[in-house]
Amino acid sequence: MLDRMTDLELMIRFLLQAFILLGACKIVGWIGVKFLGQTQVVMEMVTGVLLGPSLFGWLAPQIQNELFPKTIQYVIDGQVTTAKHPSMFILYVVAQIGLVFYMFLVGLEFDMKLISDRIGGAVSVSLAGIVAPFILGGIIAATVMQGHNDFFGPNITLPNQVLYLGAAMCITAFPMLARIIYERGISGTALGTLSLGAGAVDDAVAWSLLAVVLASSKGDPNIAILAIGGGTLFAILVLTVGKRLMARFSESVEATGKVSNALFTAVLLSVVAGAYITDAIGIYAVFGAFLTGAAMPRGKFAEIIREKLEFFTVGFFLPFFFVYSGLNTQLGLINSAYLWEIALLVLAAAIVGKGVACTLAARFSGEPWADSWAIGTLMNSRGLMELIILNIALQQKIITPTLFSIMVIMAIVTTLMASPIFALIYPKTQAFRLARKNG
Amino acid sequence: MLDRMTDLELMIRFLLQAFILLGACKIVGWIGVKFLGQTQVVMEMVTGVLLGPSLFGWLAPQIQNELFPKTIQYVIDGQVTTAKHPSMFILYVVAQIGLVFYMFLVGLEFDMKLISDRIGGAVSVSLAGIVAPFILGGIIAATVMQGHNDFFGPNITLPNQVLYLGAAMCITAFPMLARIIYERGISGTALGTLSLGAGAVDDAVAWSLLAVVLASSKGDPNIAILAIGGGTLFAILVLTVGKRLMARFSESVEATGKVSNALFTAVLLSVVAGAYITDAIGIYAVFGAFLTGAAMPRGKFAEIIREKLEFFTVGFFLPFFFVYSGLNTQLGLINSAYLWEIALLVLAAAIVGKGVACTLAARFSGEPWADSWAIGTLMNSRGLMELIILNIALQQKIITPTLFSIMVIMAIVTTLMASPIFALIYPKTQAFRLARKNG
Repeated sequence: MLDRMTDLELMIRFLLQAFILLGACKIVGWIGVKFLGQTQVVMEMVTGVLLGPSLFGWLAPQIQNELFPKTIQYVIDGQVTTAKHPSMFILYVVAQIGLVFYMFLVGLEFDMKLISDRIGGAVSVSLAGIVAPFILGGIIAATVMQGHNDFFGPNITLPNQVLYLGAAMCITAFPMLARIIYERGISGTALGTLSLGAGAVDDAVAWSLLAVVLASSKGDPNIAILAIGGGTLFAILVLTVGKRLMARFSESVEATGKVSNALFTAVLLSVVAGAYITDAIGIYAVFGAFLTGAAMPRGKFAEIIREKLEFFTVGFFLPFFFVYSGLNTQLGLINSAYLWEIALLVLAAAIVGKGVACTLAARFSGEPWADSWAIGTLMNSRGLMELIILNIALQQKIITPTLFSIMVIMAIVTTLMASPIFALIYPKTQAFRLARKNG
Repeated sequence: MLDRMTDLELMIRFLLQAFILLGACKIVGWIGVKFLGQTQVVMEMVTGVLLGPSLFGWLAPQIQNELFPKTIQYVIDGQVTTAKHPSMFILYVVAQIGLVFYMFLVGLEFDMKLISDRIGGAVSVSLAGIVAPFILGGIIAATVMQGHNDFFGPNITLPNQVLYLGAAMCITAFPMLARIIYERGISGTALGTLSLGAGAVDDAVAWSLLAVVLASSKGDPNIAILAIGGGTLFAILVLTVGKRLMARFSESVEATGKVSNALFTAVLLSVVAGAYITDAIGIYAVFGAFLTGAAMPRGKFAEIIREKLEFFTVGFFLPFFFVYSGLNTQLGLINSAYLWEIALLVLAAAIVGKGVACTLAARFSGEPWADSWAIGTLMNSRGLMELIILNIALQQKIITPTLFSIMVIMAIVTTLMASPIFALIYPKTQAFRLARKNG
């Protein structure tokens, strides 16, 4: 039996990991929010990278490896065998629990009416925000990255490489966008409407492209059909039948003002079922959780559910996801001039393709320059969404740890840029300081 | 590399486990509450056993093993090697997360003033509730169980066997007791006062005895000193210095009516630190989490924190603990007339030693018969507390899976008894139906 790692030892390590990562997020977040005008969420992304091999593991490799061990060695009949450390499985699942409930909460806040009422005005910005970064990303994948084995998994065809890098460039941190616009009370303005609508469309397109890449990278057409067909069918069912069934959830709440234990369990069961189905058909739990949230009734019901899940999810579980991402981010892999050139190229393409293109599109739609830059800046920040799409690709061996690390830099830099630029355009904003739960 | 079990497969299985156990808890709970006059919590204890090898695993061993696999086989150089399945590690840690935050919430509700103001009147009941079950348990361990290897780990000395079984008999489901008394609005009555005070004292004594057994079973006196001395020191520090430091937590809340994100993180850090310290010194995370909760300020602060943690903890994470316990409960191990006699003997001793003895003690203290029986019944139910103390002992190999299973039967039966008997004495009670979070 290879069970020399006891449950208790794992639990002790887990508690220590939790303490250190929560503490580090708090300290780094405090510095970022207080002195750098940043948001808590982007500082947590940064904390994750700092706790990984890129800083902590570089400064104190032994301590880092003791705290976040990647492998464990067993001796069997004199033979040394290396296995994945159980601690990593636990970190992954706890991070995923955080992500599933976070995406559910994002879905629960997603106001489809607001978007669909005002989608017309957002067309040019959203088109610019898809077409330009997609083309630039695709070109990079098809040209300067070709002939190197540093970036994509061995079984990923050129079309899939182009599709994936294009899609990954298109991401907008939609939940972060929605939160900022809401906090600033500009939901009804042209700026708010444009950005919200455009961000939602861009994310939906990027995720659909990811689903295609995921499906087709598996080679087996049945798997692709299951993923795309099943995912589409699931989305339709949830947003029609599911929505109608779940409409009952709010009845008792509107009457009594309370969510009963039975109702809460029903909500949890729905979320878990949604996450399970999309995970099992190959398009990942986050989709199902988001759609389940989007299909649930709003009003008092959504408010209470959010109150009961949000703090614990965002304050305790989500930081594990940032750290899990950070542990996979190895800046040391970007170890040649060529790779650093690629990293800078990706970053420049991301900013020009998304930020500048959306700014220009907004300007040509008749927005004033200040608002246009604000829209471009908001659209440009990738936030948590980019990390999700990157982790999925790394997990599925679509991209290598090297490209993963390059893309994480891009995600963090574009997100770090947003607050200072936005504050420059609208000096009095406090909104960025409020939103821990952005992303 | 032995990593053929991928993260994704584990996550899919975890979501399926979550769906099935939450669904089963809901169905079994609904039947129990609706038709059997039981509480949700005891039905969840029962659900855990039903999903384990005793029913589900007996009816459909292959499906059960697919859903809750205990081991995994690797082939290394043609050699088949068996290891603990990573899924079990994940279940354990998720269950422990639930338990840690649950015990924190119990501590947060624990009103030391209420107890200390009225402790005098509870002395005879609490004494009866300790002495009688302890003696009966000790006698069973020292007589009928002797000369058999079925019950205790090989390194557990006779005094420790006596101490452990005695302590395990003394357990009262204090949080459940407190909740029922509170729900019925009888906190100020003689019945409420007596039971609350007596239950708190009994649990404190039982836990202290467990700490002694845990410490001394480790053999090494340094470990024992660390556990007992460190635990005592930790308790004193948390309840003095810690309490004074944490008193600040409520300042901003009383002023603004809100718990800020930074404050929430500070609360989480305190809980995790408390759990980590007690886990690391060998007296388990539940102690530290409980004490941290007991030392935190009350009022609006405690109310908001409870609201933000309770539903998710009790509704999602705690059921994993019941299932984890249930997976370790193998009624099939009680496979001889002798073992069933022991099981019945333990059950009878538990009921006589705790229920009957406390009833008589209350009666002799001058309570009317009805109230005396009510007190005895409340004191008799072991609830979740017993499962915690049993799991720790199983984990530390103090007891065998056989004795674990016998004790789980005792815990469930004494808890199942409480509601119907209480309803018989006070026919109009609704209190038992309310409390999901009992235990």
